[in-house]
Amino acid sequence: MEREKLQELIKQMTLEEKASLCSGADFWHTESVDRLGIPAMMVSDGPHGLRKQDQEADHLGMNDSIKAVCFPAGCGTAASFNRELITRMGETLGEECQAEGVGVILGPAVNIKRSPLCGRNFEYYSEDPLVASEIAGALIKGVQSKNVGTSIKHFLANNQETRRMSSSSEVDERTLREIYMAAFEGAVSKQKPWTVMCSYNKINGTYAAEHKEALTDILRGEWGFDGFVVSDWGAVNNRVPDLEAGLDLEMPSSGGINDKLIVDAVKDGSLDEAVLDRAVERILNIVYRFEENRDKTAVFDRDRDHEMAKKVAEETIVLLKNEDNLLPLSEKEDIAFIGKYARKPRYQGGGSSHINSHKVTGAWDCVKDWGNITFAEGYADDADVVDEAMIAEAVANASKAKAAVIFAGLPDAFESEGFDRAHMGMPDCQNELIERVAAVQPNTIVVLHNGSPVEMPWTDKVKGIVEAYLGGQAVGAATVDILFGKVNPSAKLPESFPYKLEDNPSYLYYLGEGDRVEYREGVFVGYRYYDTKKMEVRFPFGFGLSYTSYEYSNLKVSADHIKDTDVLEVSVDVTNTGGMAGKEVVQLYVSDVESTVIRPVKELKGFEKVELAPGETKTVTFTLDKRAFAYWNTQLHDWHVETGEFRILIGKSSRDIQLEAAVTVESTVKVPVHYTMDTTFGDLMKDEKAMQIIAPMMQLNIGGQQNESDAAAEAISREMMEAMMKYMPIRGILSFAGGKVTLEQLTGLLDQLNAAQ
Amino acid sequence: MEREKLQELIKQMTLEEKASLCSGADFWHTESVDRLGIPAMMVSDGPHGLRKQDQEADHLGMNDSIKAVCFPAGCGTAASFNRELITRMGETLGEECQAEGVGVILGPAVNIKRSPLCGRNFEYYSEDPLVASEIAGALIKGVQSKNVGTSIKHFLANNQETRRMSSSSEVDERTLREIYMAAFEGAVSKQKPWTVMCSYNKINGTYAAEHKEALTDILRGEWGFDGFVVSDWGAVNNRVPDLEAGLDLEMPSSGGINDKLIVDAVKDGSLDEAVLDRAVERILNIVYRFEENRDKTAVFDRDRDHEMAKKVAEETIVLLKNEDNLLPLSEKEDIAFIGKYARKPRYQGGGSSHINSHKVTGAWDCVKDWGNITFAEGYADDADVVDEAMIAEAVANASKAKAAVIFAGLPDAFESEGFDRAHMGMPDCQNELIERVAAVQPNTIVVLHNGSPVEMPWTDKVKGIVEAYLGGQAVGAATVDILFGKVNPSAKLPESFPYKLEDNPSYLYYLGEGDRVEYREGVFVGYRYYDTKKMEVRFPFGFGLSYTSYEYSNLKVSADHIKDTDVLEVSVDVTNTGGMAGKEVVQLYVSDVESTVIRPVKELKGFEKVELAPGETKTVTFTLDKRAFAYWNTQLHDWHVETGEFRILIGKSSRDIQLEAAVTVESTVKVPVHYTMDTTFGDLMKDEKAMQIIAPMMQLNIGGQQNESDAAAEAISREMMEAMMKYMPIRGILSFAGGKVTLEQLTGLLDQLNAAQ
Repeated sequence: MEREKLQELIKQMTLEEKASLCSGADFWHTESVDRLGIPAMMVSDGPHGLRKQDQEADHLGMNDSIKAVCFPAGCGTAASFNRELITRMGETLGEECQAEGVGVILGPAVNIKRSPLCGRNFEYYSEDPLVASEIAGALIKGVQSKNVGTSIKHFLANNQETRRMSSSSEVDERTLREIYMAAFEGAVSKQKPWTVMCSYNKINGTYAAEHKEALTDILRGEWGFDGFVVSDWGAVNNRVPDLEAGLDLEMPSSGGINDKLIVDAVKDGSLDEAVLDRAVERILNIVYRFEENRDKTAVFDRDRDHEMAKKVAEETIVLLKNEDNLLPLSEKEDIAFIGKYARKPRYQGGGSSHINSHKVTGAWDCVKDWGNITFAEGYADDADVVDEAMIAEAVANASKAKAAVIFAGLPDAFESEGFDRAHMGMPDCQNELIERVAAVQPNTIVVLHNGSPVEMPWTDKVKGIVEAYLGGQAVGAATVDILFGKVNPSAKLPESFPYKLEDNPSYLYYLGEGDRVEYREGVFVGYRYYDTKKMEVRFPFGFGLSYTSYEYSNLKVSADHIKDTDVLEVSVDVTNTGGMAGKEVVQLYVSDVESTVIRPVKELKGFEKVELAPGETKTVTFTLDKRAFAYWNTQLHDWHVETGEFRILIGKSSRDIQLEAAVTVESTVKVPVHYTMDTTFGDLMKDEKAMQIIAPMMQLNIGGQQNESDAAAEAISREMMEAMMKYMPIRGILSFAGGKVTLEQLTGLLDQLNAAQ
Repeated sequence: MEREKLQELIKQMTLEEKASLCSGADFWHTESVDRLGIPAMMVSDGPHGLRKQDQEADHLGMNDSIKAVCFPAGCGTAASFNRELITRMGETLGEECQAEGVGVILGPAVNIKRSPLCGRNFEYYSEDPLVASEIAGALIKGVQSKNVGTSIKHFLANNQETRRMSSSSEVDERTLREIYMAAFEGAVSKQKPWTVMCSYNKINGTYAAEHKEALTDILRGEWGFDGFVVSDWGAVNNRVPDLEAGLDLEMPSSGGINDKLIVDAVKDGSLDEAVLDRAVERILNIVYRFEENRDKTAVFDRDRDHEMAKKVAEETIVLLKNEDNLLPLSEKEDIAFIGKYARKPRYQGGGSSHINSHKVTGAWDCVKDWGNITFAEGYADDADVVDEAMIAEAVANASKAKAAVIFAGLPDAFESEGFDRAHMGMPDCQNELIERVAAVQPNTIVVLHNGSPVEMPWTDKVKGIVEAYLGGQAVGAATVDILFGKVNPSAKLPESFPYKLEDNPSYLYYLGEGDRVEYREGVFVGYRYYDTKKMEVRFPFGFGLSYTSYEYSNLKVSADHIKDTDVLEVSVDVTNTGGMAGKEVVQLYVSDVESTVIRPVKELKGFEKVELAPGETKTVTFTLDKRAFAYWNTQLHDWHVETGEFRILIGKSSRDIQLEAAVTVESTVKVPVHYTMDTTFGDLMKDEKAMQIIAPMMQLNIGGQQNESDAAAEAISREMMEAMMKYMPIRGILSFAGGKVTLEQLTGLLDQLNAAQ
């Protein structure tokens, strides 16, 4: 609806009607105003499928949802590193929403995987904000191309489930910008999601729901967001300040309680009615955007979409280990499939994103008719008990086969929305099963179903490891196609797999104390930490094997010196040097060679997935702008590049850099300097103009006559003398010039220094 | 002088005279007032020996100092873990001061070794505050028993040399209390040093020199300090506020500039003259304490004290590796001594603590007349250049001998006051020498001279490693006695030796950005970090080998349940089960089994060094009070013990725990609780009274009628449902009770809950 018409409509609404629009009619619908023909709009959970309630919505949203198609969860879609594919998945979801009359699908969820323990990690994409932002953007693009909205969530710094409704994430400004906001920023600014969902938690003491700087100044002012902000269900804290901060729609219904607070506030003058009008306009703008662009021809073809789910799953399964090229397996060999998850895969997580899948394909379903493959249950996943009979059966099957494939992973009770994992381990019964099978069968492969890293104590005892993540309802078929080589694995890890939980950068402070959660690791999340600390990891960020091989060559940069207002074009040739067609994820990292701020040794600034036939070469290109080199400067409150050299690293993973180039970036921004009594002489020496001014003072020979005896020189070395001068603040002259310089002289000097700036 | 007389004297002083007393007369003396017979007092650098200027003091204090005796530096004395020995060293220093007319010796320096890089680490004791505090206390006790003062330094949080005069150490309250202040606290409160020296840096934005909370409220108010606070040389920032904060004596002289500021401030009424009188009284109190207790009989017997320095050195040398019991060596075998430091040991660091030693005993001096030992220089230490000729000579000597002993370590240019180390490595020329010698001589031993951990890439290639630290002027003799078994090594590491610098907890943030240095690792310094993160280290805190063996048995605790107002007696039997008399450092760590605050897995709470003849058993006892179990509670601003179980760990090192016992400590302090709308139901459930009050509300069945279909149960598991309830804040009822509960009802409930507290 045109803005003018919309505003006309709002003028016709009573105060109460306007307030009523600012919270849900029930759990899943916005409010309607029949008198004015304003329709309700339905929203639905599920970034990786539709969780649409099929009965009258109950107030906790726990009724059955309709049968739908479950796509791979966020953990897996990120591993695809394939924007185009995820856009197609989004298109499919969008069409499903059109068919079902759902106006906004509540996702994607881009929160950074700060710790392996976060219960909701399976819904999230990555430890890296660029990956999260780009994959989210691709999904948003797809969904919204069908005139259905998305709700990028959970904004902001919501990285654990523990005390998620009361805890405060204590994060410094730079870390917020470079890591936690950055996961949203690109997706919001480039793909313009219709809505943004604010999270439950506080950020530095302020609830996300009333964080004006985040919800309004940054989201709208800097990133150009023009939709509405919706609360996570129950995230509203204090309705009137929340509305003023930019939280437009409260969900679910507050039973009228909060609507009344809004009405009262307008009446008593404490809330400007314009603020309410603004929220109503934002909400109605989206309601009508959906309503006026309905696609009546859309159908929800579950079987067709199941195939799409398989297509996505094929690119979300990461091959982590393949000793002796054991994989792909031959379809003709005797193979033992082992583990409950072969029959009944764990393919999605629990909570609001849970899909009532119309069908699920387990790996065993795909092969049980072949005749050469056996199956043994191996373990139960409702309780962690080592079952000797089950293990004996599995071991017997394995010892008779040419190879064993164990389908393992985390049970639902280990990983769900609402609570965090207690440890990084898999169930003991599964670890025991793997050890025992591997002991009799050297050709053992483990397929994992989990939303976040697990400890793998048996890594060296198995030849193959396949990370299938939570791969959606078609995961079994996709896994089988990868195991037997019909599909060449092409996914890469969007997160580091540490050896143990204690390795994780947030380990010491994760979950916090009471409601205070300190993000002390700062920007050093994931590989930014492991790489900078030179720590060994089980599997590094960006890592994933293929059945073919790729060679990188011919790295070119468009210039070896640019200004921060220029762009740098980077190109690299990638050749498929193996015998099978495949897709490679080419990664570009930037490393700041020298910096006055503390920075990770490298950061991902670009990735491209390229498909290559055997022998084929393609040129992959990247365009880097200022942002690729910048850090968030807390003095400027802006992105800033320090003049200096940067290295462009092209890698197959964060730990497998193939090619490097150097570029010098020159800043066009001068960071203001203000000299004080505490400014050191070392700092002044970097400033030519300042040096000219202080030159006469330096003639005073502050150091005095030095006694050049051996003993004295041994005590106060040349290095120490130089350092003392370099680190001495201007005021130090008073202590060491023995009264030769007065305070007034120094103050005058400072004035001169600052005037010259 | 009696207080009354002192105050009478002060009354006779003019304002100008009083102000003049608040800064030095020159670099090394307090001001005198001849008119009133008030004497000057000399102070002198050097916690491990006297650095007394022998000429008229120049204003940078760089003239020659008198010949004196250099004892092992702080790094080594801490390794002795021997309070009695260090007290005797203190007595010796005290007597030297009396003989030389020095009223206060400027040490000990107890700053925590936060990073291996700190240039001044060699003067500091430990990464653990208990060790630092106890060893400092022992030294203070010794010196002051001779009626000479000490100046415990550098107060506070001064853990790097880089920008030490302008940087701000950003440290949270709990970390300050548990780590950085704790290093001072025990020594100050138990041993009452005559003076405390404030450091150059800022703490959380406030210069130490004007940090009233630290200098007055805590130091005097809580710890009972009654001497004067002196500035580090040049640490005064803003004289009048500094004086008000509790900085009594400015050093050195400010040439009258700052005295005048004080006079002016009193005159214009901006400074209460009583503040000035207080400072003058504190200073004169110490001046007269020294003056009235002069020991005219004291002599500075350099040869006698050299023997004392050797005695101390014998207990500061840590045996880190002794494969195949290669050590002790036989005096009759052919042995190759290699390395410049055998001839000219690096036995002290550069800077203000540098002693003009009256003689130095190198290891080569002790053995050169034996006839069976060769010497090769091996490397030069004025530049890091691999010298093939020197190496060839060393290799030739080594290959002809039964064993090679390489004396290596950090050159002066690597480690000094004034600047920090650039990396954790030793010079390449030395590493190369060690590799090359070890390649031809399997029985290679490395003796290290350094003030702080170094990387040892050759560890696996040598059979013996002896950490001699900076062992003072007699280090060579002590080292030879240990190498050849005349002395049984008994020192242990007062710090962890990580494999590489990047392992260090402060690595990512060490040195800071500009003048802001964040202590993000918090209380996780040293082993507190490595042990909690389960990281491998090269050599752990508390580790050190002996030529005999010890067995621990019969651990007893006086109770298995105590109140936090009780003490716990712990005893353990230690037996020398080897064939040589020796001394063992028995370590007691406390581990909090469960805690709502984030704590290290264990912390050192006691240590005792015990001497045992072969076959002898002694019982070692410890008394633990509240403090041994407490953490600093930032709500109470006090030490606090959470009721619960603790484990008492008795170890030979932090990684070699021999015996364990459990004790439950019950708190007698109730931490005030105030319930708010953000209080979670989980927190309420821990409070019986609160549960009674909210019981009616719980009957409302906030969760509503649940649809118990399989699909719904799969989405929202029992675990998730429970977690949602546990983490829901009181205000959440408004969102999920569908209007059944009003804001007024909730507010009323809160009032009831708080009234019941």
